[in-house]
Amino acid sequence: MDQRVREHAATLVDWSARVDPGDAVVVSVAEGAHDLAVAVAEALGERDATPVFLYDSDEVSRAFLRAGLDHDGSGDAGDDTDADADDYDDAERADEAEPTDDRTFHEPAHERALLEAADVYLRLGGGRNTAARADVPGPRRQARARAVQAVREARFDTRWVSTVHPTRSLAQAAGMSYEAYREFAYGAILRDWGALADEMDRLKRRLDAGSEVHLVAPGTDLRLSIEGRTAVNSAASVAYDSHNLPSGEVFTAPHGAEGEVTFDVPLTIDGRRVRDVRLVFEDGTVVEHDAAEGADAVADVLDTDAGARRLGELGIGMNRGIDRFTDNVLFDEKMGDTVHLAVGRAYDACLPEGESGNDSAVHVDMILDVSEDARLEVDGEVVQRNGRFAWEDGFED
Amino acid sequence: MDQRVREHAATLVDWSARVDPGDAVVVSVAEGAHDLAVAVAEALGERDATPVFLYDSDEVSRAFLRAGLDHDGSGDAGDDTDADADDYDDAERADEAEPTDDRTFHEPAHERALLEAADVYLRLGGGRNTAARADVPGPRRQARARAVQAVREARFDTRWVSTVHPTRSLAQAAGMSYEAYREFAYGAILRDWGALADEMDRLKRRLDAGSEVHLVAPGTDLRLSIEGRTAVNSAASVAYDSHNLPSGEVFTAPHGAEGEVTFDVPLTIDGRRVRDVRLVFEDGTVVEHDAAEGADAVADVLDTDAGARRLGELGIGMNRGIDRFTDNVLFDEKMGDTVHLAVGRAYDACLPEGESGNDSAVHVDMILDVSEDARLEVDGEVVQRNGRFAWEDGFED
Repeated sequence: MDQRVREHAATLVDWSARVDPGDAVVVSVAEGAHDLAVAVAEALGERDATPVFLYDSDEVSRAFLRAGLDHDGSGDAGDDTDADADDYDDAERADEAEPTDDRTFHEPAHERALLEAADVYLRLGGGRNTAARADVPGPRRQARARAVQAVREARFDTRWVSTVHPTRSLAQAAGMSYEAYREFAYGAILRDWGALADEMDRLKRRLDAGSEVHLVAPGTDLRLSIEGRTAVNSAASVAYDSHNLPSGEVFTAPHGAEGEVTFDVPLTIDGRRVRDVRLVFEDGTVVEHDAAEGADAVADVLDTDAGARRLGELGIGMNRGIDRFTDNVLFDEKMGDTVHLAVGRAYDACLPEGESGNDSAVHVDMILDVSEDARLEVDGEVVQRNGRFAWEDGFED
Repeated sequence: MDQRVREHAATLVDWSARVDPGDAVVVSVAEGAHDLAVAVAEALGERDATPVFLYDSDEVSRAFLRAGLDHDGSGDAGDDTDADADDYDDAERADEAEPTDDRTFHEPAHERALLEAADVYLRLGGGRNTAARADVPGPRRQARARAVQAVREARFDTRWVSTVHPTRSLAQAAGMSYEAYREFAYGAILRDWGALADEMDRLKRRLDAGSEVHLVAPGTDLRLSIEGRTAVNSAASVAYDSHNLPSGEVFTAPHGAEGEVTFDVPLTIDGRRVRDVRLVFEDGTVVEHDAAEGADAVADVLDTDAGARRLGELGIGMNRGIDRFTDNVLFDEKMGDTVHLAVGRAYDACLPEGESGNDSAVHVDMILDVSEDARLEVDGEVVQRNGRFAWEDGFED
């Protein structure tokens, strides 16, 4: 096994999740993340923690979500096993028509019981096909997202961390060779997190002291209230209220949004390609939206529930170990010289004790490049211009 | 996808587990059972059940169980990532010495919570290497088996079914090509279970009416009390108190065993090859044991706890769709013209209401061929001789 896989597991377990002896740990393993799961299993054993491993397969999930739509998953219950031309025709029609809420989903109460009894949740992402769930109809995704909301909440109540194992599928999505992608991924993951935390603390203090953010870039002129909110110094550790490995961003939960924003960094939502999303906000809510590609995927997200049309997050990427976009939000949103906004759920860590932020079954991040013709102001003062921060060499006010 | 995978999933969900709408289902997926998991996911979706998928990887399990023993899993916590000659020496010494109870395991309380909230448990076996856990020291296996005993009990309280997806690894263990093995496996799995249930009922009624079984074969002369016990007509369905797919055996829970037995069918215990196990019983307990190969594996099992030295099961194979031994107990023990005994835990279905049978953290089946020079008597009457039952053509009393 590549020694970096072991270092990744050790960073995840020790720095990120702060696993203690006796912890009950849930480890969710994507199809392609087997090697990392093996390394995490041994790391947890060495620390006297007790793991349970979930199988988080996109193909299994797709088959469950699409059940009844066609013969590509398991067909009808085995009593008529011949392919039937009429059935295929039906399936195609169903597909074209995008069935509306034709199926209800039950809450997985047993999965919730598992998570409620867990101290730590580790998500090992990294599948075999980033488009594996591309043909799951939007209404079913949304119905399922609503059904599992309590499970999500239970997950958020643990010391949860999300990471990815570099797979060939992710390399392909990034347009990179497997070897080059692994270099890239471990370059972003295996960092001196303590040193980055110190640097990010400077931005956190500016945001904590401010009450309004003004973001200006090509196609973007947006004002966000951050009054009373606390920014998270996201240093890839639950000790910093940070739940991604890699991380390297400072984020907060805005309330109130006015203006428009254009996200010029391409992304993938539920297996569908999305490009140049434009959102217009009035009184905190999306009142207009379009995209050069994947507008349907954006609409599906916004239609999930009321909170899906409001912002849950403003994040500022500060991980300069990430030097290119790879069509993976976990990395892209952390890249230096980028800003991202998420529609949907806000993280409690940004809110005053007892106050609840924006609530939703979704949290979808979208990114804009701020390296050119862009500025970020806090209370009228420029904090970042064209990617340079106020405290950095080369900054021009 | 091979249509037989879909038929397998439908048989598992409908005939075996009797899945109802709204059921909370736990599906345990072995490393090589992905395709069956996809088919089961769709079948469960069609039946409006709610699944959670566990990742049951032998390599992950090995890494957890071996943690701390060597560098083959994840090494020391990342702060010193260079291979160290001294460490390797230590690991080798540790390995040779088979560390005794050097590690305690906690009960996975979160896994127990998951299973206690589940209606159905489906185990999809079929890994990538039947020897993947061969180098886990016996004391650790035993300690872990004891720690998860409540989890096992919670599993047994669901409508649980264990099956296997035919994999290349299982084909190899059987000494068969992949294609031939799949023919074999689906020949055993996709049967007319209702018809076989009717045939097996004849033997069940003989056992239920009897009080003593006498088994005679080369190297075997064993008397078992079955007074008051109820035989299970194991027709691969929870509706018959049968939890294996394939099945095709009649089994009961003996109490009291006197004499000796030699199991001439080779088997694999925890990844280790075992051949010609001989057990001598006095007053229901193993007082002497040896084996031509794998005696250590047998000793590890017997040393797990007190119940591991007593019998939990007498089973009589009646699935003549299984026409060869394939080094997989799920199939081998169901083969016509075989008898098997298990040391360890007894199944409640064989016991009178409220009575508890033999208790243990283990249940290990061992098989003997009774096609020649063998007879099975119930209360002095020959029920089976040289593989023929009393009601079959060619039977000689």
